[in-house]
Amino acid sequence: MAPQYAPGLRSRLPLVAFLLETIFILLFVFFVKIEQHERTDREADSKLFISSYAEFQDIHVMVFMGFGFLATFLVRYGFSGSGFNMLLAAMAIQWAVLMNGFLLPQHHYRGEIHISMKSVIEAELCAASALIAMGAVHGKTNPVQLLLMALVEVTGFAVNQWVLRTLLRVDPVYSVMLLHIFGALFGVMVSWVLYREGIEPVHEKEKTDRKTGLFAMFGTLFLWMFWPSFNSALVHPRRERGMKLTVIYGTYLSLAVSVVMGVSVSVLSSSKGKMNMVHIQSSALSGGVAIGVAMAAVHTPWIAMMIGFCASLISALGLRYMKNHMLFAFECHDTCGVLNVHAIPGILGWFAHLFLRLASIESTIAVQFAVHHICVLLVTACMSLVMGTVTGLFLKWSIWRPQQDRKCFDDQAFWEFPNLAVQK
Amino acid sequence: MAPQYAPGLRSRLPLVAFLLETIFILLFVFFVKIEQHERTDREADSKLFISSYAEFQDIHVMVFMGFGFLATFLVRYGFSGSGFNMLLAAMAIQWAVLMNGFLLPQHHYRGEIHISMKSVIEAELCAASALIAMGAVHGKTNPVQLLLMALVEVTGFAVNQWVLRTLLRVDPVYSVMLLHIFGALFGVMVSWVLYREGIEPVHEKEKTDRKTGLFAMFGTLFLWMFWPSFNSALVHPRRERGMKLTVIYGTYLSLAVSVVMGVSVSVLSSSKGKMNMVHIQSSALSGGVAIGVAMAAVHTPWIAMMIGFCASLISALGLRYMKNHMLFAFECHDTCGVLNVHAIPGILGWFAHLFLRLASIESTIAVQFAVHHICVLLVTACMSLVMGTVTGLFLKWSIWRPQQDRKCFDDQAFWEFPNLAVQK
Amino acid sequence: MAPQYAPGLRSRLPLVAFLLETIFILLFVFFVKIEQHERTDREADSKLFISSYAEFQDIHVMVFMGFGFLATFLVRYGFSGSGFNMLLAAMAIQWAVLMNGFLLPQHHYRGEIHISMKSVIEAELCAASALIAMGAVHGKTNPVQLLLMALVEVTGFAVNQWVLRTLLRVDPVYSVMLLHIFGALFGVMVSWVLYREGIEPVHEKEKTDRKTGLFAMFGTLFLWMFWPSFNSALVHPRRERGMKLTVIYGTYLSLAVSVVMGVSVSVLSSSKGKMNMVHIQSSALSGGVAIGVAMAAVHTPWIAMMIGFCASLISALGLRYMKNHMLFAFECHDTCGVLNVHAIPGILGWFAHLFLRLASIESTIAVQFAVHHICVLLVTACMSLVMGTVTGLFLKWSIWRPQQDRKCFDDQAFWEFPNLAVQK
Repeated sequence: MAPQYAPGLRSRLPLVAFLLETIFILLFVFFVKIEQHERTDREADSKLFISSYAEFQDIHVMVFMGFGFLATFLVRYGFSGSGFNMLLAAMAIQWAVLMNGFLLPQHHYRGEIHISMKSVIEAELCAASALIAMGAVHGKTNPVQLLLMALVEVTGFAVNQWVLRTLLRVDPVYSVMLLHIFGALFGVMVSWVLYREGIEPVHEKEKTDRKTGLFAMFGTLFLWMFWPSFNSALVHPRRERGMKLTVIYGTYLSLAVSVVMGVSVSVLSSSKGKMNMVHIQSSALSGGVAIGVAMAAVHTPWIAMMIGFCASLISALGLRYMKNHMLFAFECHDTCGVLNVHAIPGILGWFAHLFLRLASIESTIAVQFAVHHICVLLVTACMSLVMGTVTGLFLKWSIWRPQQDRKCFDDQAFWEFPNLAVQK
Repeated sequence: MAPQYAPGLRSRLPLVAFLLETIFILLFVFFVKIEQHERTDREADSKLFISSYAEFQDIHVMVFMGFGFLATFLVRYGFSGSGFNMLLAAMAIQWAVLMNGFLLPQHHYRGEIHISMKSVIEAELCAASALIAMGAVHGKTNPVQLLLMALVEVTGFAVNQWVLRTLLRVDPVYSVMLLHIFGALFGVMVSWVLYREGIEPVHEKEKTDRKTGLFAMFGTLFLWMFWPSFNSALVHPRRERGMKLTVIYGTYLSLAVSVVMGVSVSVLSSSKGKMNMVHIQSSALSGGVAIGVAMAAVHTPWIAMMIGFCASLISALGLRYMKNHMLFAFECHDTCGVLNVHAIPGILGWFAHLFLRLASIESTIAVQFAVHHICVLLVTACMSLVMGTVTGLFLKWSIWRPQQDRKCFDDQAFWEFPNLAVQK
Repeated sequence: MAPQYAPGLRSRLPLVAFLLETIFILLFVFFVKIEQHERTDREADSKLFISSYAEFQDIHVMVFMGFGFLATFLVRYGFSGSGFNMLLAAMAIQWAVLMNGFLLPQHHYRGEIHISMKSVIEAELCAASALIAMGAVHGKTNPVQLLLMALVEVTGFAVNQWVLRTLLRVDPVYSVMLLHIFGALFGVMVSWVLYREGIEPVHEKEKTDRKTGLFAMFGTLFLWMFWPSFNSALVHPRRERGMKLTVIYGTYLSLAVSVVMGVSVSVLSSSKGKMNMVHIQSSALSGGVAIGVAMAAVHTPWIAMMIGFCASLISALGLRYMKNHMLFAFECHDTCGVLNVHAIPGILGWFAHLFLRLASIESTIAVQFAVHHICVLLVTACMSLVMGTVTGLFLKWSIWRPQQDRKCFDDQAFWEFPNLAVQK
């Protein structure tokens, strides 16, 4: 039974991974150096290093632990959730260091890419956008497909950043924060193209149990707790100190409100008045997404709280009602609900950003700002939708040997369980 | 079967949570601002910020991850343990920022509450005291009751701090560290008033298994590892630098000794010479509680180790022998054993503090110090006992629709498990 | 059935632990003080403290959480894995503070041992080497044996460091990093001496399942994520700043490559083309071991990546093919595969260090360096092999009452499960 698809993985995954890794190492040989800070003041630098190393680790924990365990909620897909997440993220950060280095001017000097805390933090954030995209196709693709998708996604996101920063002169921090919208739309398009009829109306293995719900809680909490670092890491601690603090406290309060609203809406929208663990976990995070996109325009705690309030409300309603609608109306299956957790709260944050800015600037430049702001979203959305569709078509190619429908959401397709028959 | 109590939650929890959250946001609109540090030296400030942000995150992890997963030890109550913990803590920190701001003079300037690292750390510690109280009633109350209890507890703790700091001129750090005693006594009184005959002698669902024991281990370790930050976070890094280091190393050593004694006593007091996971987890933490209360008087490592030694000894014996005694003699059921983990080690720390100080000061002021020290404990104990009783009576009101006895310690009363019949 | 061996533990473990703890506290009374930094520049010091406290906590998390949960992969041995790890580490750090203080000159002044961040970090690293040794005998020894083994191992490692630093004038950081080789060889020898015929060819309880695999993933990730701090913590941030950054980025990249290679080799070497969770977890860590030993000679990112590449390749192949070979050919059973995860990647790192240095220095001093470098490895290997054998013989003594063969890899020998019959 099992061996019919397994040979595909043996002849594909090691080859693809080995080839890509060799290419990465060769590129590192010729282009990458470690930044040695000869040019700057050592004292100030040392202090910045301490601060940014701690922030880097917070984000590192979010990417590997947070996203990894968030993806373990499926009852028979925990190994794949955390294992593929680790594999993808490890590849994506290497590729992101290279792509950011080649494309973005502040990462290379005289033809060399210099690794610094800033560059690895940006690489981790690029990897995060790939992991968000993975959430949409989680359980329905094999690791070779995921690996290729992650690298294309990182490339697309880096190109999008280059376009935004160079052509539209967008603030770098803001352009990175669009990762939620880019990743989620990209993933949803891939999932739409790769749609399988066999998993409708609901796959028997697509469910959670007491223990996997706790593992997912665990990933959720790591994302939730360190989100203030996620949003504030790229804000310069000296030049924009006030903003850094505002972002930290704003994200913190927005997330706290998200939890309360997520629980409330989950109970209210359930016919039996019970909570849904997966919905609560997802909507608790939506406040961090929305405030991340809006943060440059948020200056008071209560506005941050209101953004968390609305984001969580929309996200929890979307998870309850829109997810199934998407499946039946558009034949688009979104395993982790990334559309409702990342894309829609991200767009909400974008709107909040727009209105808050329009309210504070003069009317003469308001139109100009609005047009620019709308362009940024349109460019990002178009690029991610187009690239997602193309990537989906590429991954549909049967050469990648996807698992059969009945092997979806099942670790046994990819992992050794020699003693499974005995142990349970 | 299930729907008979569920509507209660649907009509109560969203309403209560939504109303409270709206009030909180309105209070934030009018009273809360983000501190911008215009007045202080920027350089020094930046360094302090780096340090205190890291400490804040350690405590943030303890409150959400540590307490949350510590409460997952019950075999059928893991979702509630971690989920309710997250909900309560998210509400409690918002309320604590407001209460501390209104009551304690160093948090407000010209009628405004300024959010700073110090104020959010204090808010997290207040939330921790509410979570300790929750430990005593864990599994026997619904989330509406827990939410109300947490907010009353935070209010009581803030008032108690105001009394201690203003009327008795107690050191702020010491007054916060009494959170263990306040929270535990409060929770035990609530549990005593809410006593249910139906759960005697032992509820069939009040037990742990291999996997939930590991989830609880995981929460325990997060509390255990970051406890040095918990105790030292409010000690000023510049003014009392020596003390800060002493507290860190003292807590570290005290906790290490606690682990060894917890294991020893657990084996020794077991008739079959086996260890009890829950007892070891609890008594491993007691050293941190005791040293937290005594820390201002501890100056050498070995005294810290002796305090950890005694705290763990008493706590492990109490968990083995006193917990059941409490249930039968006083009809007081304490799910997580907070009396033995927080209250009694806290009082032990208070005694250690008293004797260590009396040994080091002159006899002329010794009596004065002893009277003052005893007053502090009496005020705290009285306030928490009285408020706990009143809160218990208020929560006994059937309007809050508590679950039936046989639904205690059971996630199914509150959480959706659509596929439970199929999956196991 | 159960009680036949239980009395042994009751009369042994509390006595041994209590006695040792009392001795430790007495030694702390007479010899240990907390460093107060009166002599150094306060400002600089304060900054170093912030940095080293964060690094200390990363390592603290690795030792207690990482190693603890890495050891939970056995399906019926999770309580023992995390519980014994906590007990051993708590004892080992106390003993390591004392041993390092007595033996190594930079830890004591005028007959007193001063506790500082540096000394507790070194104590944690010594504890880590004892935990690596524990990995080899995991599941086949009782906690009394483990406790004694851990203390002997820490003593041996401290003596080895003293020999290396004093007689061979080895760099302190490098001498500590040999902990992987020392711990693994020590543990393998103990396991070889304690060999039980009853567990051959494979013990029915020595296996993993879906949930314990995730718990182990969780420990793996904590080790994996914080490894850059593990390797760089003892590198002085001011004097060797360039090196500190190089070590951090090098370890980070080496570990990322390790993950990719671990997955590839695991799939390629499986007949069905499936991944093995335990192998992937182990080989993902091997890159950190190898780069840790080689780090003083690694100056460019791609060399770090190549070291991670080779370490993971050898480690994954060793876990797949050599582990069983060791069992049948040499009657040496290595539960966690520490030989393939720590010893062999460590030796690979040693070779990389040798060749990289030889390539960069003049030929006149090359021979001298090579001889010295070989001596360091030989001394360490001999000392750990001899001490491991002696310790094994000492632990074979039946006075320690080891569990029967059929009680190996089983929590029930040591832990209370009162409701086990009911709950599952």
